[in-house]
Amino acid sequence: MRPRYRVVASLSRLHHNHRTFLTSPSSSDEGFDFIFYMTNKAKSINKALNDAVPLCKNPLVLKIREAMRYSLLSHGKRVRPVLCLAACELVGGHESTAMPAACAVEMIHASSLIQDDLPCMDDESLRRGKPTNHKIFGEDISILTADAFLALSVEHTVAATSKDVSPARVMRAVLEMMKAVGTEGLVAGQAADLAGEGKCFEDNEVSLEDLEFIHIHKTAALLEAAAVMGGIMGGGSDEEIESLRRYARCVGLMFQVVDDVLDVTKSSEELGKTAGKDVIAGKLTYPKVMGVERSKEYAKRLRREARVHLQMFDSDKVAPLLSLADYIVQRLN
Amino acid sequence: MRPRYRVVASLSRLHHNHRTFLTSPSSSDEGFDFIFYMTNKAKSINKALNDAVPLCKNPLVLKIREAMRYSLLSHGKRVRPVLCLAACELVGGHESTAMPAACAVEMIHASSLIQDDLPCMDDESLRRGKPTNHKIFGEDISILTADAFLALSVEHTVAATSKDVSPARVMRAVLEMMKAVGTEGLVAGQAADLAGEGKCFEDNEVSLEDLEFIHIHKTAALLEAAAVMGGIMGGGSDEEIESLRRYARCVGLMFQVVDDVLDVTKSSEELGKTAGKDVIAGKLTYPKVMGVERSKEYAKRLRREARVHLQMFDSDKVAPLLSLADYIVQRLN
Repeated sequence: MRPRYRVVASLSRLHHNHRTFLTSPSSSDEGFDFIFYMTNKAKSINKALNDAVPLCKNPLVLKIREAMRYSLLSHGKRVRPVLCLAACELVGGHESTAMPAACAVEMIHASSLIQDDLPCMDDESLRRGKPTNHKIFGEDISILTADAFLALSVEHTVAATSKDVSPARVMRAVLEMMKAVGTEGLVAGQAADLAGEGKCFEDNEVSLEDLEFIHIHKTAALLEAAAVMGGIMGGGSDEEIESLRRYARCVGLMFQVVDDVLDVTKSSEELGKTAGKDVIAGKLTYPKVMGVERSKEYAKRLRREARVHLQMFDSDKVAPLLSLADYIVQRLN
Repeated sequence: MRPRYRVVASLSRLHHNHRTFLTSPSSSDEGFDFIFYMTNKAKSINKALNDAVPLCKNPLVLKIREAMRYSLLSHGKRVRPVLCLAACELVGGHESTAMPAACAVEMIHASSLIQDDLPCMDDESLRRGKPTNHKIFGEDISILTADAFLALSVEHTVAATSKDVSPARVMRAVLEMMKAVGTEGLVAGQAADLAGEGKCFEDNEVSLEDLEFIHIHKTAALLEAAAVMGGIMGGGSDEEIESLRRYARCVGLMFQVVDDVLDVTKSSEELGKTAGKDVIAGKLTYPKVMGVERSKEYAKRLRREARVHLQMFDSDKVAPLLSLADYIVQRLN
């Protein structure tokens, strides 16, 4: 059966997004074309994601699969799966070995976005310019779709990973991924985020600790899992895997600091989404806690820290991960 | 920290439930005290479940953990985990080897009940006489709680299973469990059930095939996973595991046929829950498709089939699973 949603449009949009975000050429490694790298990786990832969620004939399952494909194959920068593949290659593995894990991480990301958008959560009608999943398929199907992604993320990692990777390594990767979902990951982050909105923090008793808790769980945990899973699948040593973890945690926090700063400093037009939303929602943000300038400094310090964690690796292999960190922080310029 | 919810009340209620349901003594194996067996197993299971979801100090995570414990440690017959432990013992394993998997299956069951009760699904206010999870904790927390259970079910199976079980077996068990959750299991069953309510089937184009699809996915799949996981953890051969699968599929369907028949033949008082609900909701049921008498015959045929699938095992070890099948069908008397 032919797929309903095409990935081609998504890819050209991805390329466009990269050009827009990167206001200056990637400076970290001269000669390394980061845009070309990301676009190529995203192409392989989109192909693998398309294959991982086939449509089916049974009309009772078809709707779920359509809802999965609607969210999974929509425009996305694929930062998490690229990170997973790059980590795998950095420790000497082949892209294809980490591809099932990379897809799994993107499924979890899709699942969390579907849930965050629900009326009882952030109540969003649009995401990346398209109606949110529940606006198209209904709340009930959206909730089931999010479950289906969680289940498939594990199934896909276990069943699609090459037989050359030991079951013990696959198990370790799955454990990392599920930790990033549950009460040590996304679930805790979203619960904290909901608690942090509006009333709970109106007394200004907002601490950097609360904020870091939210973002370490809501954003950094899955980026961390992506990098760590790549390292595990690629056959990395424990030391290499822990360095990847620390690198990814810095990148995850930096990602959020930059997002928060852009929300208060850029116009909706520049952002391609509604600006100032966090302020309106009374959300806890870095600029709110430490001001815009100190937030920018913090993002840059996190980039420096991220680079330090990559020092143990061969300098000629580290360009993709260095550039990824630069890519995120350069959006501030 | 002391647990907030106690399992003692739940156990005495369980014992009471068994006495109520079993209108005649278990006839399959004279000398085997099924009630004693179930009560004992449920006691170990409740202890393990209590330990698997500890409360924590962080207030941002505490609410999720409280919501998890509210649903997981409530009164339940623990049919699925008992089936898992009994299957493990049947193939020669020790109860403790399958306990993490048994707990995981019950977590998934709890997760699916929380979701089924949501306003956008079956919109239930009460379950087993207590307010449903979202009535106490809110829809947002309930949805996150259901996710947390899915993640924890995998984490717990992987991390808590004895090191004596090979990672390959643990992975195989996890794969079975996730298949029972996704588009080959609960998700498909619930989607089909939602599609089958009201309008879609008012044209009477209801087939036994549609009905079996719903129940094989919504009820039988998780019972099947429970038995198969027990067989895998206990070190069973492929042939033994497949026999357990076929047995559990019969039991799963039988479970649903009996439930459907009771809904139309018993009063709310006799059932301990609202009778006739399926009819009011326009749900697809066995009595609707094949009438009450043929449904009863079908349940008995499924029991006979379930027994056939156990013939390959030692007759002196098979009493718990034989009695479990009897226990379910005897509710018809």
